[in-house]
Order: sequence, then structure tokens, then C-alpha cells
Amino acid sequence: TRARDLGIEIGILPTGKLNSITDVEGVLVGHLTKIQGKDIRTGVTAILPHRGNLFQEKTPAAVFVGNGFGKLAGSTQIEELGNLESPIVLTNTLGIAAGMEGIIEYTLELPGNEAVQSVNAVVGETNDGYLNDIRGQHVRKEDVLSAIRAAKEGRVEEGNVGAGTGTVCFGFKGGIGTSSRKLPESLGGYTVGVLVQTNFGGVLQINGVPVGEELGQYSFKNHLESADGSCMIIVATDAPVNERNLKRIAQRAMMGLARTGGIASNGSGDYVIAFSNHSQNRIAHQATTLDLLQNEMLRNDDMSPLFLATIEATEEAIINSLFAANDMEGKEGRIVKSLPLPRVMEIIKSFGNKD
Amino acid sequence: TRARDLGIEIGILPTGKLNSITDVEGVLVGHLTKIQGKDIRTGVTAILPHRGNLFQEKTPAAVFVGNGFGKLAGSTQIEELGNLESPIVLTNTLGIAAGMEGIIEYTLELPGNEAVQSVNAVVGETNDGYLNDIRGQHVRKEDVLSAIRAAKEGRVEEGNVGAGTGTVCFGFKGGIGTSSRKLPESLGGYTVGVLVQTNFGGVLQINGVPVGEELGQYSFKNHLESADGSCMIIVATDAPVNERNLKRIAQRAMMGLARTGGIASNGSGDYVIAFSNHSQNRIAHQATTLDLLQNEMLRNDDMSPLFLATIEATEEAIINSLFAANDMEGKEGRIVKSLPLPRVMEIIKSFGNKD
Amino acid sequence: TRARDLGIEIGILPTGKLNSITDVEGVLVGHLTKIQGKDIRTGVTAILPHRGNLFQEKTPAAVFVGNGFGKLAGSTQIEELGNLESPIVLTNTLGIAAGMEGIIEYTLELPGNEAVQSVNAVVGETNDGYLNDIRGQHVRKEDVLSAIRAAKEGRVEEGNVGAGTGTVCFGFKGGIGTSSRKLPESLGGYTVGVLVQTNFGGVLQINGVPVGEELGQYSFKNHLESADGSCMIIVATDAPVNERNLKRIAQRAMMGLARTGGIASNGSGDYVIAFSNHSQNRIAHQATTLDLLQNEMLRNDDMSPLFLATIEATEEAIINSLFAANDMEGKEGRIVKSLPLPRVMEIIKSFGNKD
Amino acid sequence: TRARDLGIEIGILPTGKLNSITDVEGVLVGHLTKIQGKDIRTGVTAILPHRGNLFQEKTPAAVFVGNGFGKLAGSTQIEELGNLESPIVLTNTLGIAAGMEGIIEYTLELPGNEAVQSVNAVVGETNDGYLNDIRGQHVRKEDVLSAIRAAKEGRVEEGNVGAGTGTVCFGFKGGIGTSSRKLPESLGGYTVGVLVQTNFGGVLQINGVPVGEELGQYSFKNHLESADGSCMIIVATDAPVNERNLKRIAQRAMMGLARTGGIASNGSGDYVIAFSNHSQNRIAHQATTLDLLQNEMLRNDDMSPLFLATIEATEEAIINSLFAANDMEGKEGRIVKSLPLPRVMEIIKSFGNKD
Repeated sequence: TRARDLGIEIGILPTGKLNSITDVEGVLVGHLTKIQGKDIRTGVTAILPHRGNLFQEKTPAAVFVGNGFGKLAGSTQIEELGNLESPIVLTNTLGIAAGMEGIIEYTLELPGNEAVQSVNAVVGETNDGYLNDIRGQHVRKEDVLSAIRAAKEGRVEEGNVGAGTGTVCFGFKGGIGTSSRKLPESLGGYTVGVLVQTNFGGVLQINGVPVGEELGQYSFKNHLESADGSCMIIVATDAPVNERNLKRIAQRAMMGLARTGGIASNGSGDYVIAFSNHSQNRIAHQATTLDLLQNEMLRNDDMSPLFLATIEATEEAIINSLFAANDMEGKEGRIVKSLPLPRVMEIIKSFGNKD
Repeated sequence: TRARDLGIEIGILPTGKLNSITDVEGVLVGHLTKIQGKDIRTGVTAILPHRGNLFQEKTPAAVFVGNGFGKLAGSTQIEELGNLESPIVLTNTLGIAAGMEGIIEYTLELPGNEAVQSVNAVVGETNDGYLNDIRGQHVRKEDVLSAIRAAKEGRVEEGNVGAGTGTVCFGFKGGIGTSSRKLPESLGGYTVGVLVQTNFGGVLQINGVPVGEELGQYSFKNHLESADGSCMIIVATDAPVNERNLKRIAQRAMMGLARTGGIASNGSGDYVIAFSNHSQNRIAHQATTLDLLQNEMLRNDDMSPLFLATIEATEEAIINSLFAANDMEGKEGRIVKSLPLPRVMEIIKSFGNKD
Repeated sequence: TRARDLGIEIGILPTGKLNSITDVEGVLVGHLTKIQGKDIRTGVTAILPHRGNLFQEKTPAAVFVGNGFGKLAGSTQIEELGNLESPIVLTNTLGIAAGMEGIIEYTLELPGNEAVQSVNAVVGETNDGYLNDIRGQHVRKEDVLSAIRAAKEGRVEEGNVGAGTGTVCFGFKGGIGTSSRKLPESLGGYTVGVLVQTNFGGVLQINGVPVGEELGQYSFKNHLESADGSCMIIVATDAPVNERNLKRIAQRAMMGLARTGGIASNGSGDYVIAFSNHSQNRIAHQATTLDLLQNEMLRNDDMSPLFLATIEATEEAIINSLFAANDMEGKEGRIVKSLPLPRVMEIIKSFGNKD
Repeated sequence: TRARDLGIEIGILPTGKLNSITDVEGVLVGHLTKIQGKDIRTGVTAILPHRGNLFQEKTPAAVFVGNGFGKLAGSTQIEELGNLESPIVLTNTLGIAAGMEGIIEYTLELPGNEAVQSVNAVVGETNDGYLNDIRGQHVRKEDVLSAIRAAKEGRVEEGNVGAGTGTVCFGFKGGIGTSSRKLPESLGGYTVGVLVQTNFGGVLQINGVPVGEELGQYSFKNHLESADGSCMIIVATDAPVNERNLKRIAQRAMMGLARTGGIASNGSGDYVIAFSNHSQNRIAHQATTLDLLQNEMLRNDDMSPLFLATIEATEEAIINSLFAANDMEGKEGRIVKSLPLPRVMEIIKSFGNKD
């Protein structure tokens, strides 16, 4: 179930066709879900900015660190060079190395990359150690390759899938969620798509309704609980924006997270990676020396609608991750319940406009 | 009128005694309101971290740039040295120079500062040019000195006052607002106070209720309006936190702004300045060479409640700025109406929990 | 006297025609020197990126903070928006406000700017308080306007002039210096020009020769002296590079400073502002909504020669500032001697290649 | 051979006892050198901040990015939390994942870490792909563990060893180098130690002497050659400085690199990691909630000697890496010659002071 299917309309802008990051033409998403025995509840999610050779045709990109208690690989090169040259892989905290190995093998083996000796593998994570035997390091290079190779267009599976298999969010089962916004033509007609891996805490609010408080489940309720956890947020757009404006977009995604009641607690690794796959602005790895890139770019003055789109899509993607997730039993018999949707919808209804 | 007086309770943490930045013991606030003729609608607000000589007893401090379309003076030295050595002055965009002059004169003339040859004046601004003849540069050094000298403890005037005299927020009259949170002893017992100068746009939400949409007044409503404007946010705390954790606190204030529907639009200068006036950690300007500072500091692990407090107090301070503001007629006969409180309260009521 | 005239050839790249920042076509420099009575030894230097209306035709720009103990105005907006919309003004530490006032008046009064209500004035400083009555704040708005209006092409006066009137560098009289590099066509043919305001300490090295040690004048010589002071560095180029690569260029300027023996001591405000006035990439203030900027840009791979050019020109500009300066008597009868050139040239000769 | 043994005295400050990073009491260094067959020329170097459990007793730390074309793992968490909780591992570009695996296994298996589920592995690299079959990814987790376990006090092997086995610097064989400075008691008596992995280009200068030009080997000599490559720089100190001042120290290390003729070319991954192992300021992983850290810290005003020490030790460490390296034959029969020391010493002598 997705939030919008139940009548929850977040924000004022229209969604893209699938209300998914894949509404940005060319973006591919793949999952590898690893549920084995009683203790393994983890996985991998891969996001590919376009269908081509990502190393040979790099995309402008940026990273914003919402809270850096996390192990994101690849951020400094994105910041320095302004681009992304690999799939983005999400997995668990102790799986970053496997993520890098998968990306590197994938990249080295792609036709055309025979001479490549350096790959900036971009791998993010959240900690699924409550439900998953994370110390066992069960994500392997092969799993990462599987997720990358499974990447496809179209509908994206949400909830307990891929890198969201074992995550917990606001005390409920979290997971993968996605959403998108398509700007009206008068604002440019561009699409912004967001995919999240939710594993964080706070005081849950759904489209403004204080669901966490109503359910009696929120951080610091008894001045004891931790709000820790993390959120990885991937923002894709087809708008012609450079790395600086992508960083500004990335920064707005944290404002979307804030609207769900997230607080970027101390232990949360909250990172946003934003890229534009606008075809004119891709950066060829090989080029004639001194040839100039010919770019087209939106002016700063035209960025605000993209900011709003990012905020809305992030908020909805997080809510979608909660709505799509199911109860999960994992490590040491621990059970994390999903959001009790019937009760949640009652609460939302009770807070609805009565006039 | 303040939001809480009308029954609007934002967040889960208790407020300080006055629900004001001055709940942080020692913090002083002063306003100079300049309403003259038909075209001058501006002013100055000064925040002093403590009652002593601010240059001789510096406070740990940090700046977070939510969106840097603004002219904040003093940020790089705060970042480099980790401290604040002056009052914080807020005014209009073209008044930064006057703000600096006022701070410099104030500082040079303080007893004990006879040898001072360098002052890092910290001055923030928002653009009140819709209601105020900003090109006339009517804020003068003397006005700044008046605001600084008027700084006092106790209740802080809100709304159309000081640096908020001519500002506009969410299409309504904005201004100065303040709020605070006092953590329960089990979470440390520290106080976080916030003061805002609101002049920004977006889609107004009050404690989760979509007031902007209900009133039919919000950015991009007809895909035409600008959401531009700015917000200065000052966060004070008595918690023993160093400049790095103050920067983290500052970053959370933008999450509070997000919860009101702000989007940090392109043209918005959204800056947060956070300081701790914890007495043990003040930094003497003069000291024996090689003497070590003896500091006490909260651990990273204990920061999350302060983050939540900052988010909540910022959200409420912004709402307070709107609730306290009155209609204002200014430059060229322009009128900006305040938030229609009776109608707003009806809306909020209609979205209230019916169960 | 300039270093190169005495046979000192710094680096491996050729200089531009005038070995000056004005070798970058269109860049203008103006000075206002203020020497009055016994105590006033200060001034203003203005750098204009091009001859047009700088506000209406902004230039891509970036700031790098070498050491942020300084009061640079305007940095956060440059960082956020990636551009410069004003002259760059250099003056003394307590003259920043006057610098802003001068820039604002200049900008508001330019034909075409009648509706402007916001100006990001960029003003840097170093502290000339040893020779100048800095507390007297003798730089006025009018002085700033004079420097801006005096800005011209061609040879740039160096030494005790403009913002360098009262500065001290490596214990000798510092001041304004400039230099440039013109890349060979095989490396792009672009020009990089640097202008510095030198007021810092360390262990002076001239083209690798330990002149400071030989002269017995350097920081920490007796483990007592301070190395404090500051350096403002302006880097101009006609190369088509965006704000990100300008930031990388700016960062390299500090490497040029390092080669002179500067150490970016605690008290030093070392800032680099870099801009590109490549005509294709200027940013019109007014434009049709949603029209795209059409930019051309060097690829990352072609940046290294510009980095080297920046390092070399910065090193030489600093040395030029010392060579051009003369003895100066100022506040309280204090005298700062210029570099003893005959002795320095003897030292340099004695360290020359004997083979 | 070390530079100082040949009479080359870089800087004005005295070295520590061993002129090595291990002069900082408690710092341990271990190498694993992997020379196999004709094509494998790589290795691992591990730096441990102290002898204890690094995860349970974290050290204040900071990262400065000189040029971010590199894959450094762990930087964002160091920046956010201000500390280091693992050994620092250096290896080749495609060995980062193995480095992380080694650190994670080492950490998870340490007594006391049984409950650890998250480790911020810090791994840096340079690209040894000219001499080494880097695509073969010959560094394994076991190699990393070997290097960590081999870490010891005392003299540090330099040159073609560990992570420096296959590196190239200024067109000569690079490698590992180290140096230190011990401040006189009047400046605090603290020690700064530096270790480098050199793999970068530019125009080699040794203690100010233009050796690269004299040897006719330098970047852009024929306007064709690349200056690319990278440098990892680790700075250790026992001085009581917090994460902010460690970042300032880290930034100065790039100034030491500049003094050798390095230019931080586009393709260079130049990173500095600085930590303080001052015993009073270590951060226990486990602590009672709300207990305050009691830290002692040098004031900003006392930092400059540490900056100079860092610059000097970095410069000398780089030169040491060149002096210690030997000719190396590797992949595809390629040979990289070491610096021709007899000729170099002649050059240096010929540039010596003749008076």
C-alpha cells in the first residue's frame, strides 16, 4: 500500500507517473533482498543514473551531509569533481566494503572500461543490526552485483526489500520508499524523484498529523529512548542543474525528512546524494584535451520549484517506506511491527478537515 | 498573542519559563524599531550572549548556512575560531554596514577594550524592501547602538519590532518571534532558546495543519509567485557544547523552519547562529601563553535531546513571529496583512483531533 | 622595483604582458591611499572583474578560506550562488563597513540598477593597526568610491599603496603586489592574474632562498615573536571555469603563499577570492524565467596548468609586494623598514647555482 | 638514507628523537609490503594513534581535503563527530574495500568490542597502477590485518615499503616518508609527527633548491606531461587540541606539500588526517549518560608553532620518502628510477650559500 492510494496527498505539486524515482527518465533501480535463517535480514539497493556506461558518461552530482554519523563512501570525490561515475549502492553499515567491491568489479568489467584503474564507488548505508546479524557481514560482492544487474525502469518495490530489508523507522518497520514530483510546464516541467532507505527515529508526523504521539510511540517519550538510526536519500532529476545547485537540492531533502518528524539524531547517518542525468550535461570520461564542455543550466532564480519538489518527494518517500513495510522477525527473535495502517488511517481521518 | 496562549502546543518538550530565548540565563535582547513617515519600516534587534564584556569573554559559537543568499557578516571567523566576540545584530539587507559600525563602536568603547584593534562584528539581515525604503539605508550606527544598549533580560517583544518591523512571511506580516525548550533533568535539564527574524515564503503549516493551503495563500499557488525571502535564526543554550556540536544544533534549526512549510527558496538568506554561554567554557581574550583551557562538554551521544529542542523551539518561534505581528502599511502605500488569527484558529480547530 | 626586473624568475610558466592581474583582459584595479598626519596610514584597493555593470553581469566566483581569522564580507553568498556581483574592495580590518557602504552606493547609483534592493558587497581586509590608527576608522565611504572610480587597466601600482599602505609582511614593509601567468597555447592559452595585500608572517623564502633566516628576521626566531597578520589574495582568470573549479584555483593560491614561507598563523586572515570573467559565462541579473544559461567550461582534466599558474603568480605577487614597498613611519612614530634589497640580492646571488 | 643525514635541514624547528611520526608517544606504524611476480607492487601501511583499544578510546581528529580526487573512507564521520575510532590504513586506490574489511575485522575481534555493530574504518589511498597490477586487486583483508598487527613504536621504515611500494613522486620513485618536530618548551614542548604516502607530481624543490628543473624532470616541462597522482598525509600530535584546531593543523600540511613543488593537480587525491592522542582528551566509547567530558585545550592563540611544525615535518617527510626509495621495476616491465642522490646532492651543494 502506498500513502497516496489511501488518500494521503503530501504537498501541493503533482507526482510523476509512477510516483517513483524512476519517473526521472533513464533512472534504474535494483534490489537484492537477503533473508536467510533467523538472523540474516539485510540486502542491497542499487540506483543507476542512466542506462549507459556510468563511468564513461558521468553525471553532475552532489552530496549533502545531514548528519555524518555514517560510512558513506565516495563523497569527497563527488564534492571535488562535481560528478558521479558509478551506480549508487545502499546496504548495511558493515557492508560498505562489499558494496565497493561490487561496484568496482561491475565497472572494471564493463566494455569500454578496460583501461580503468580508478573508480569512485559510492556506497551508503544504514545500520540494520537490530534485526540483522550485521557483525556476520552477510552482504557479499556478488549480492551487490546482483542488485546492480537487476536494476530496471518502472515500478520500484518498497518496504522490506533490498537495503531496507532490516531497517527500523520511528519504532516501526522501515525500508525502501520512493516518490516523485513533476513540475508543471510553467515551472519548467522537470521531474524530481527520490528514493529513501529509512532507519531513523523522532516523533512521527504524517502529512502534518501527529501519528507518533497518537500511537504513543516516539523518541524521548519516557525521556529514555534513543532516536538513533539513519536515512539515506537519493534525489534524481532531469533538470539541467550543475553540481552546486544539486547540492542545494540535496540540502532541501533534509527539510523533507524534518517534516516527517525526523530529528537527525546524534547517531543518525543522514546523507543525501543528488544527481542530474540531463543528457546535455553528461561528462565524457574521455575527451580531447582542452575541448570545452557545452552545458546548459537553469539559473539560480529558477531553482525554488525544484527545492519544493525535493522536499515533498522526500517526505512522501519516507512515508511510503513505512506504509509498504511489513512486520519482520529477525535476529534473536526480535520482531519489529509495521505501522498499524488501519489505526493510522483512523488517526489521520480524525485529524482531517471537518469543515 | 502567542501561539501557545491559544492552545497551540508545538512539539513534545516543555518550554522554558518565558518561552523565550531569554530563558537561557544571561541572554539579553534589545530592539530598535524605526517607523518614520510613510516609507521607513525597519529596525534593529540585538542579541547579547551574556551580560559581561563579550569581547573579553567570548562564547563558543557556530554558523550553519541554510541558504546563503544573504549578507551575514562575521561567519568565517566564527567558523575558524569557534567563538563569538560581539553582540549579534539583526537588521535589513542594506544595513549590515551600519550594524558593523555599531558593534565596533560599542566594542571599542567598552571598558577593558582600549587596546582592541580587531572586532568580528556579527550582523545578519533579511530584506524588508517591500514595506521599507531599503535603498534609503535608514538604519544608522546610532540605531544599532540603541538596540544593543536596550538589551535586557525577561520577556522579548515579538512581531513588528526591531529587525522584524518590515518583514513579510508566508505572504503575511512576519517579524520577530521567540521560543524556548527546557529539557527535563533526565535529559540534562539544559535550556535552548531561539529567536527568529522571519521574512520567507513557502506553504504555511502550523503545528502540522495546512493553514496556507486553507487560506489559499502559498508559494507557487498559481505557479507564479515567488517564495523568496529570508530567515535569521539565533539559537542560544546553556548546555556545555563546543563549536562542533553547536554547528550540529544550528543545522537542526533549519529542520524546525521546514516544519512550518519554509522551503529555503533560492532568494532566501537562511542562516543560523548558535552559541553556548555555559560559564565554564567561555574563552578569555587575554590569557597566559600556553595556559590550557579547561572545558567541560556533553558527549555526542547526549546531543539528540538538544537537537529536538532546537527543532521545536525554532518551529514555535516562527509561528510566534506570525501570531504577534500586526498589519503594516509601508512604502508606496503597500499593506501587508497579519495572519487572520480568528480564521486561522478555526482552521486549526477543524483539523484538530475529533476523537 | 619588481623581483623579475632583478632577475628573480619564479616558476616555470611565462608571465603575462604586464605581469599583473590586469593581464586578464577587462580587469580593472584602483587604489586610494590615505596618508595623513603621523597616524593615518591606510587605504583602499578595488578590483573590478570587468568594465561593465558588475551587478547586471555577474561573474562566476569562489572563495577559499586559508585561515578565517578575518572579516571578509560577502563570502556566503558567493559560495551559495557561485557568483560575484560587486567590485572586490580591500581595506583595513575596521574599514569593512565603509567598504560595504562604498560598494552599495556605487551599485545602487549605476544606471540600470534603479530597482536593486540587495547587493552582496565583497570586502576583504588586513590589519594595519601597527602603523595606522585603525581605531580611528579613517577609511570612509567616499574613499572606497574613489578607489572604485579610479580603477583602470594597465600597470598596477604596488607596495605602500591603497589597502597596502600600512601593512607589514615577514617583519618588513608589505603592501600590494601583483603578478600573472599566461599559459602556452598547448595548455589553453589562458591568463591567470593575482593581486595580494600582504600583512603576514613566517619565515621568508624568496624563490627558494631562505632570505628570512639569512637576514635573521623570522617568526619564532627567539620563540617569542608572533607570526600573525593576514593576506588577501585575488585571483582573476579568463579561462572558462565554473565556481567549483574556481574554488579549486583559490585553494592553490594558498600553496603559493606557502612557498614564500607564510604559515597561515592563528591570527592571520588569509582569504582567496577567485573569479572568471570569461565573457560567455557571465550571468545576467535579469533574464526570462526558465531560459537556460549556455556555458562553456574546461574539463576537470584540463585544470592542472591553471593550478600551477595560480601558485606561481601568487608566490611572485607576494614577493613583488615586498620589493615594491618602501620604509614607512606611522602611528606612535613606529617605523617599518622595507626589505633591504641590496642585501637581499646578495643573499639570493650567494645561493645561486654556482655551476 | 634520510635527507637530514645528508645535511639537508628543512625548517627552523628541531626534530623529535627519531624524526618520525612515532616520536609522538604511543603512535604505532606497521607495513605490509606486497611484491610478487612481475606485476604486483603494492602494500599496506597502518597508523595506530595509541596502544589501546582505539574504538573504546577514540581520539579527537580531523580531515582536510587538499584535493578530493580520491577515495578516502571515513571522512564524513570524523568531520561530524570530531574523532577517530580505528587505525588509519593506507593502501592503493582499488584496495579501499580490503582496507575497510581489515579494520572492521580487527575492531570486531578486539576484546571489549563484542557488542560493536558499527565501525568507521578510515582508509586512504594513492594509485600505484603504473607499477602495480592495480586492477588485480591484490591487497586482501589479511594483508591489512598483517599491517595493523605489525604496527610498532620506534623507527619507521621509509621508501618502497607498505602503501608506498609502488608509488611515483615527481617522476621518481616515491613511497613512505616520515618526519617530526618537537617544539621548544617555550612554545609548549609538544611533538608533531607526519607520515606520508607520496605519489604526486609538480616541480620538485628540495629545501628551496629547484632540483626538478635542474634534473630536467618536472610537470609541464614539454607542456604535455601530467602532474597527476596523490598524497596521503597523516599528522599526529600529543598537543591538547580539539577537532577544530586539528583541522587547521591538517590544512597546514598542504602548505608543506606546496613547499616541495607539489601542485595538487586535478587528478591528485591529497588528503590530510590529523589526530591528537593527548591522553586527557580521549573519548570513551562507553560512558554514563550526561557525564561531561573534561577536556584541556590549547588556546587558538597558541596554535601557530604547531602550524609551523606541521608544515616543516610534512615537507621533510615528503623529501624523506624520495630519499629512501629505490629503483623499482614493475608491471609490464616498467621501471621507475629513484632520485639520483649523488647528482641531487651536487645540485643542492651548488645552490648552497657560498658566503
